[in-house]
Formats: sequence, C-alpha cells, structure tokens
Amino acid sequence: MRRLVVVGGDAAGMAAASQVRRRAGHGGREPVEVVVLERGSFTSYSACGIPYWVAGEVDGPDALVSRTPEQHRANGIDVRMQTEAVSMDVERRSVRTRAADGTETDLGYDDLLLATGSVPTRPDVPGVRAPGVHGVQTLDDGQALLDALLAADRPVRRVAIVGGGYVGLEVAEACRRRDLEVSVVDRSPAPLASTFDPDVAEQVADAVRGLGIDLHLGSPVTGVELDADGHAAGVRTADLLVPADLVVLGLGVRPAVSLGAAAGVPLGSSGGYAVDRSMRTPVPGVWAAGDCVESVHRLSGQRAVVALGTHANKQGRVAGINLSGGYATFPGVVGTAVTRICSLEVARTGLSEREAREAGFAWVTATVDTTTRAGYFPGTAPIRVKVLAERRTGLLLGAQIVGREGAAKRIDVLAVAIWNRMTVDEVQSLDLSYAPPFAPVWDPVLVAARRAFAAVEADAPD
Amino acid sequence: MRRLVVVGGDAAGMAAASQVRRRAGHGGREPVEVVVLERGSFTSYSACGIPYWVAGEVDGPDALVSRTPEQHRANGIDVRMQTEAVSMDVERRSVRTRAADGTETDLGYDDLLLATGSVPTRPDVPGVRAPGVHGVQTLDDGQALLDALLAADRPVRRVAIVGGGYVGLEVAEACRRRDLEVSVVDRSPAPLASTFDPDVAEQVADAVRGLGIDLHLGSPVTGVELDADGHAAGVRTADLLVPADLVVLGLGVRPAVSLGAAAGVPLGSSGGYAVDRSMRTPVPGVWAAGDCVESVHRLSGQRAVVALGTHANKQGRVAGINLSGGYATFPGVVGTAVTRICSLEVARTGLSEREAREAGFAWVTATVDTTTRAGYFPGTAPIRVKVLAERRTGLLLGAQIVGREGAAKRIDVLAVAIWNRMTVDEVQSLDLSYAPPFAPVWDPVLVAARRAFAAVEADAPD
Repeated sequence: MRRLVVVGGDAAGMAAASQVRRRAGHGGREPVEVVVLERGSFTSYSACGIPYWVAGEVDGPDALVSRTPEQHRANGIDVRMQTEAVSMDVERRSVRTRAADGTETDLGYDDLLLATGSVPTRPDVPGVRAPGVHGVQTLDDGQALLDALLAADRPVRRVAIVGGGYVGLEVAEACRRRDLEVSVVDRSPAPLASTFDPDVAEQVADAVRGLGIDLHLGSPVTGVELDADGHAAGVRTADLLVPADLVVLGLGVRPAVSLGAAAGVPLGSSGGYAVDRSMRTPVPGVWAAGDCVESVHRLSGQRAVVALGTHANKQGRVAGINLSGGYATFPGVVGTAVTRICSLEVARTGLSEREAREAGFAWVTATVDTTTRAGYFPGTAPIRVKVLAERRTGLLLGAQIVGREGAAKRIDVLAVAIWNRMTVDEVQSLDLSYAPPFAPVWDPVLVAARRAFAAVEADAPD
Repeated sequence: MRRLVVVGGDAAGMAAASQVRRRAGHGGREPVEVVVLERGSFTSYSACGIPYWVAGEVDGPDALVSRTPEQHRANGIDVRMQTEAVSMDVERRSVRTRAADGTETDLGYDDLLLATGSVPTRPDVPGVRAPGVHGVQTLDDGQALLDALLAADRPVRRVAIVGGGYVGLEVAEACRRRDLEVSVVDRSPAPLASTFDPDVAEQVADAVRGLGIDLHLGSPVTGVELDADGHAAGVRTADLLVPADLVVLGLGVRPAVSLGAAAGVPLGSSGGYAVDRSMRTPVPGVWAAGDCVESVHRLSGQRAVVALGTHANKQGRVAGINLSGGYATFPGVVGTAVTRICSLEVARTGLSEREAREAGFAWVTATVDTTTRAGYFPGTAPIRVKVLAERRTGLLLGAQIVGREGAAKRIDVLAVAIWNRMTVDEVQSLDLSYAPPFAPVWDPVLVAARRAFAAVEADAPD
C-alpha cells in the first residue's frame, strides 16, 4: 500500500490527511496509508484562539481543538504524537523520526507533505531565551503563558510584549482584560505598521492607548533584562528599560522550513517552500502546505508567506485531494486579514501603499468616514474605509478598514472585488445589501470606491 | 438657460438634482436650472426607516430626512413642495403642475426626469380604501399610521397586516414592539415566499411565530371588514375573519408610472419605465430613475422592477451625471436584499429557485448550517447559507442566508461573486478575512460554496 507521511498535525497537515483518508481507497482509487508526525501535544487546533484563551474569553485548550489525535485515529489516520521529523532523504524517500523517548526510526514514504507551520520570530538579542520569555505559537505555548500569568509563586503584575503586530496586540488586550499593566515595544512608529498604512496604523495606536496599554514605539528591542535568578525582568531598547514580570514575543512568525531545506527542498525568495498551485514542491513525492509555504499574491504576482489558518486549511485540503488522485488548486491570495482590539475592528485586503510601491504600481487613495448602519439607526458605529486605486485604470489595489462593531467584515466585499480585478468605477455600482439595520443607503464600501474613482478622474495624466 | 424638471423629490430625484447642481455650470459646462416637483411634505427621506420609526426604535420623521427642501434650496434647487405633476406633453416638452391650492401651471423643460417612485399595491377588494387602512410608503403614511396607533379616541389593540413581504414583516415586528396583537395575512404558504425559496421562508415563518405574531397563510385577502362607522374592523379571507382595530397594507409596491405612461413614455414588460444604462427613456429629453424604472438582472438578463433605496440613489446619481454632460452608467442588479425581523437576519442575492427556473437554468443546491464566528468564540451565532449553482458549469446562481447577528451582511460576498460570474469552485477558494471573533476558519460562505461544488460534481451528467 502507498504511504503518505504528513509532517505536522495542525490545520494544513490534518486537512490533507483527512481528505486522503476520506477519498483514497474509494471509487476505484488506490488505498493509502496515512501517517502523521506531530511533535506537540495537540492536533487540529486554533492557534488564532490562543489570545482569547489567555484573556479568559474562551475556554482552553480543549475548546480550541477541533479534532483530537484519538478522533483522527478513529478515522484511520496513524497519528504519532510528540514525534518529531528530524531529517529526510528525498532520494530514498525516507524520513527520520524521533519519539518522545528519544528513539529514532526511519520511515519510508511514497509521498510526504511538509506541513510544519511556522516558528515565532525571536530577535537575536541577549536574554531572549530566558525563563519568563514566552511565545504564543502553539497550544503548549498558550498553556505555558497562562500558567505563568496565574502562577502563585511568582505573581505577574506587569507584562511587556515585544512586537505590535496582530498577535502582539491581541495578547496585549488579553493581558489588559486580566487587569495587568501592559507595555508593547515595537521598532515601528505605530502598531500593525508592517501591514497597514501609517495613517490607519496611527488610528490603531490611539485606540490601543485608549485601552490603557503603553506603547513604546520607534525603537527596536536590544535585550531582555534579567533578574538575579536569570528570569526575565523587562525589555530594553536603545532608549529605555521597560520593567516587566513576564515578556511575550509577538513579533510574528517565519516559516518552519529547516527539515525540507536541509534535504534540498527549494525555498522561494520569501523563505517559504516553493510550491505550485497543486501544492507540489519541485522534489518528486514532496508536497507542502500551510504556514511553511509561500503563496502567490493574485494582484502583484509576487510571492509571500502568509501565515493564516484559513489558507492552511484550504491548502491542506487541496494537497489531500491531489494526493488521492483528484484535482484541486490553491489559486493564490489577495492579502486579506482582520483583527479586533477590544471593540476596535481592523481589516485589510489587497496591497498597502508600501506593497503597491514595491509592486511598481502608481495609485491614488480615498478615505471616507461613515457609519456601519443608517445614521439614524440604533447601534450605528463609525467606520473608516481607505481605498487604493491604480492611476489611470482605476484598478482596485487595496483597502483598509478601521471601525467599531460591524465594520471589519466588510473587507470581504473588497477582497472579492480585488480577486476579480474590478475597477473602483465598477465597485461603486455593486448591488450590496441595504436595509437600515445593516448599512447606510450607500454602503461604506461603495462610498469609498466612489471617492477613489473621483480621485482617479481628478488625477492629472502625465 | 436649460431647464431640468425632476418629478419626485426622494432618493432618485434629489440625487439627480444634486448632481446636476454640483456639476452644471462648472468646468465649462452649460448652466442648468433645476426644478423639483414633490407632491408630499418631505424630500430625500428614508422610507425604509418607517417601520423602525413606527416601532419607536428610531425618531421620526426628521431623523429619516437626510436633506430638507430648505437645504436643497440653499444648494440652488428650485424645490416645489405639495406640487403634483398631473400630465406631460413630450412633444411640446412641457409638464402641467398642480400646487396645493389647486392652481395648475404649465412648465416647459429641456430635460425631464421621472423619479415618481412606487405606489403600494392595493388589493382590489371591498373596503380597502376605508379609514383605518394604512400604507407605509411615504413619511406622510408613516405619520398617519403612528398617529392612528397612538390615537387616544380610538385605542388600537389588534393590528392586521396584509402581506408578509419585507415591509409587512417589518411593520408586524414594529407593532409587536408596541405590545399590540399582530396578525399577518398572506396568500402564500410562508412569509417572504415571493423572494425566498420555500425551505428558507419556512424558517422565517417559524421565527415570526416565535415573536408572537399570528400568521394566516395560504389564503388571499377577500375584503376589509368595516364597523358601523365604516372604519376598518378586520380582514377577511376565504376561510376566516381576522378582527383588527387597524389594517396595514404591506403587499409591496408597483412602479408609479401613470404620468409618463399617459404621455407615451414606454414601459418595459415588468411595468416600469424602460431605460437604457444611462437612465434615458426612448423619448427625447425624458429620463427616469428609481423605483419607477426597470433594471436588468445581470445574471438572468431579464428585466425587473426592484424598489430599493440603494438602487434609486445610484440611478439618480447616474442620471444627474449624464444630464450635466458627464458619463456614468447603471450596470444592473443581481437581486440583493436584506431584512431583519427582531434578531433574525434574512438576506438573498442572485436568483431564487423559482427565478432560476424562469430564466431557464438547471441547478443544484447546497445548504449548510454553521456559525458566524469560531464555534468556541463568545457571541457566535447560527447561520444557514443556501447556494444555487448551475449544473455542469458550477456558475453561482443565487444564495440565501438566514441567521442571527452577523449573518446577513455576508450575502454581499456572494453578490460580488455573482456580479463577476464566479463559479462555486472558485468561490470556495476566496481569500476572505478570518479571525475567531469574525468567522470560523472556513467562512460560512466558503463552506456553502464547497458543498455546492461537491453537488455539481456529484450531479450525474445527462
């Protein structure tokens, strides 16, 4: 029987394994043995839910697990927990595994799926590996962070978070909900600065400060301060020392590619595994999916690693279908993302101004401030929509939304518009749903497109 | 100076008048005199807000007016209130107006815009014009209904609503909020049956009954029962008498086309004025926009009258741009609509099964029940998404959503997908925003598309 080995038991890996188990051996298809290697203690979990677990908003860790190893085994998947893939030989089609007890075994495969996810970025500064410095990447990380926050023997009053990206801000909010003093340290001039334009990020900064979170911006972390026990006691930048009882790394992630890279599986320029639209790598029998691969941005044509559970699930499913004799493709991304910081909702899609510049576009922008419902309707909330449109053509290049309840999910309309390469002229005419509890008579998205079209028209040709 | 006469001072008419005032006479364009004839007491108001005003949820009538006659006059528009257009002569380019005091005057025009909106459908049954029978079409109607509901001399305890469409249900909910006994009488087997499929409409029926609203379905109204004073006292069907102190007509609307029709302005097969995409009628100098025109459904290619404020605004704006020497088009509709009945949200786009049949499509359906947020996230709410996809091609034909808070606005994603003629295969791959407070890792829209794609694949070719 053919054997598929899946390395990594979270979203991408288990989506693929489940597809193969469901499809292979049926309808005349060849049966396939599916082995999953997972080095942690959980399968199929929502890492995105960790900050809300830390906040006490949701239960954990069980509630964050959509399927346990036992459930996967009941579906006929050979899940090997606490088992690491330490090396692979793509010529012999074999992977060396190391179990919790240190036993190493060689496991042959016909196909292998790299679904190793990502690892948190650790700044290369003194003290970063000291006790009291936490990541929030896996459920094991989440449990460790929560244990530390609640530890009776070492009470935590002040938390310093390194990095003001999505995860950093989500954890900052979580700690505020626990009534802790929270500081966020980021080298950028505003939080979310790597994915949002400065004007939008500035609005986020105001909202974050409004939550009572200290922002120390514009200066990178130079080291983790240690106490006499060698435990983290704060974060240093060039300018200041931010004292803290606990440090959280929220600097984002990079693809976990060491296993494949050491075996000669090619990486793309962005550092993720290079895969085609069927999730095949150029190495025979080797596939990859999830946070460890790079995806094509449909608008810029450029490749980037986008670590999001929704892509990981889709890519894993596509890999699984192709691995079991079907045909499916992952047609790329348009850079959509959303987060909530307390009642502030923030979302983006397409290209930011920086990304548009890097892709060689010239553009105009329009920003509108309006409301999520009819202005007179109870519960109406502010929403700001910023739109980028290509000069001359009016091609919708990107959008960013900041607002209160009901604002952010509107980004999906613009994501579908970008997916279909619509111009802002056409977007302003879209037939979007209207009723006073749901939108003003001109939906905010339409108003933003209308203004962007006016900006394209007003833009002097050269 | 050229003169534009606009007949009707609500969304379409005032959007056009405002565009012309803003644009004409600037940038080398010819100046235009703009006269608006409005037979009622208000301009630029939200008729969609009336049920919420009746409910006491929003203030009225002023809060529902986005711009008063005085504000329009301050912008240089000659607004003539309580002034009706009684006839027009398209050869002489003249319209006869009748002021509140009965004075008739002939007013010449270079261009004339018919923005006469719609009139409520009145069943041709005995008693339908009696006192105590109310429409909810204009702010004047809303004021009269509210006055009657609150009248001290004739207390209202029981309300019968004829018609279980959007407006009928919205008014039913409004009356329930005022602790009245409410019955809805509809000839169809379920409310919203003309725009939703029976399975979805049945869910709406359950929710409406859950509000304590009596539904009398399957039997058309045969008459309005009158009391000794000739005031409405109930509604009759073939089977029963529904006693009521007040009757509301919620049967929907038909285009108000008598003015133009009498003058030879052609109507389309749906009964609305036939216009091209620039909002011109075939009669020189005569334009039309808003609830009185028919629009092209982009998917079926068929023409229909869709009375919605959002289309009226867009069409009025398009007419105004073209009337002042610019160029804009209204590219059609895809049949998107949304409403809320208490906490139940209901939305649709594209074609229902009946509409798909009428357009000659063959299709498969998929219905999924999932949640608006990650399943473990506080505030997650049920959402049902039904999708129609064309047999063989998988073209997304239509979608219907029923759910609780956060469900309905997702219809917009599918509306944009239909606008762009996407297949369900492609829709399932869309890059929609994901974070636990906003969606499960597979957004409900994606799951529905995935299931519909599976149904297309499973569908036996013939």
